[in-house]
Amino acid sequence: MELLQKAIKEKGKVLPGNVLKVGAFLNNQIDVKLLAEMGKEIRSHFKDCEVTKILTVEASGIGLACITAQFFDCNVVFAKKTKTANVDGGLYSAECFSYTHKKSNVLIVPEEFLTKDDKVLIIDDFLAHGEAVNALMKIVSQAGATLTGVAIAIEKGFQKAGDDFRAKGINLCSLAIVDEMTDDGKITFRK
Amino acid sequence: MELLQKAIKEKGKVLPGNVLKVGAFLNNQIDVKLLAEMGKEIRSHFKDCEVTKILTVEASGIGLACITAQFFDCNVVFAKKTKTANVDGGLYSAECFSYTHKKSNVLIVPEEFLTKDDKVLIIDDFLAHGEAVNALMKIVSQAGATLTGVAIAIEKGFQKAGDDFRAKGINLCSLAIVDEMTDDGKITFRK
Repeated sequence: MELLQKAIKEKGKVLPGNVLKVGAFLNNQIDVKLLAEMGKEIRSHFKDCEVTKILTVEASGIGLACITAQFFDCNVVFAKKTKTANVDGGLYSAECFSYTHKKSNVLIVPEEFLTKDDKVLIIDDFLAHGEAVNALMKIVSQAGATLTGVAIAIEKGFQKAGDDFRAKGINLCSLAIVDEMTDDGKITFRK
Repeated sequence: MELLQKAIKEKGKVLPGNVLKVGAFLNNQIDVKLLAEMGKEIRSHFKDCEVTKILTVEASGIGLACITAQFFDCNVVFAKKTKTANVDGGLYSAECFSYTHKKSNVLIVPEEFLTKDDKVLIIDDFLAHGEAVNALMKIVSQAGATLTGVAIAIEKGFQKAGDDFRAKGINLCSLAIVDEMTDDGKITFRK
């Protein structure tokens, strides 16, 4: 998606260790107009699919999920992060290692917010090693719900989770795929 | 706001200790259509005010802030919560005690996302003791920005922060004010 690639090039920052900071428009400051265009693009990708619920994870997925949900006319559910697997009953839960923060969280969703009748679109800001999306897919499976697909703002194409998902037949919509980043700030997008 | 009061009565849960759970539509599952009506109401309250940025705090303020920002045609910035006051340079920060989680956090916002030229509307899901809003107001003040006002989904009227803010002349828009909750689930709204 050209508009998103432009924002990444103009406002993103490449840091050593394959870190791409997009806090200027995506996950600290949020450019709501850009998100609306991204939401339309996601709707267009999944135009023939039924979506009854958008599932994301706090905190940085919530903005894109909410704006996008308006185009699907459905509710958003976000998983909360807890430190311990020892959670109360009535919850779906799945462990998720964060490479950014070098620690494990458990993602939890109350059972009442996801049912076997739901057709779920997972949305997140980044896809790299796929930890968060894998945990959300486990939660969808625990609910007995149907996974419609996965929509991602920025996929780190060199970190393979996206290609693995595509190989498995998951309907994955990545609005921008970064195939290479160099420490001097050069970013190469997949065509 | 009648629609919000209806949602609170029908889908909210009163728990002992003056806890009001609204995870069914506001801060775990998010009813995006309801949020759009709330956003319009907030826009209407601040119709004569200039707002260049909406400031909120992760995670549960982000949905309402993003949907509402569309009616103000401005960006959202959300403060992140950290455990320590020992934060890096280039950040505004303010301590915030959470009565819900019985612990202190430090809210941080990168300096680049809030400037002295900004007219800031603070948005959050709940107002009770005013800890989060007070911390966000400190951050607005550190930036030398102008506080336009504060918009809240649900004010706990019996916990006085809202009345204190109004007495100080802060332009506060609370979409629903709960004046009393009883342990058997009865909720009385302020007229």
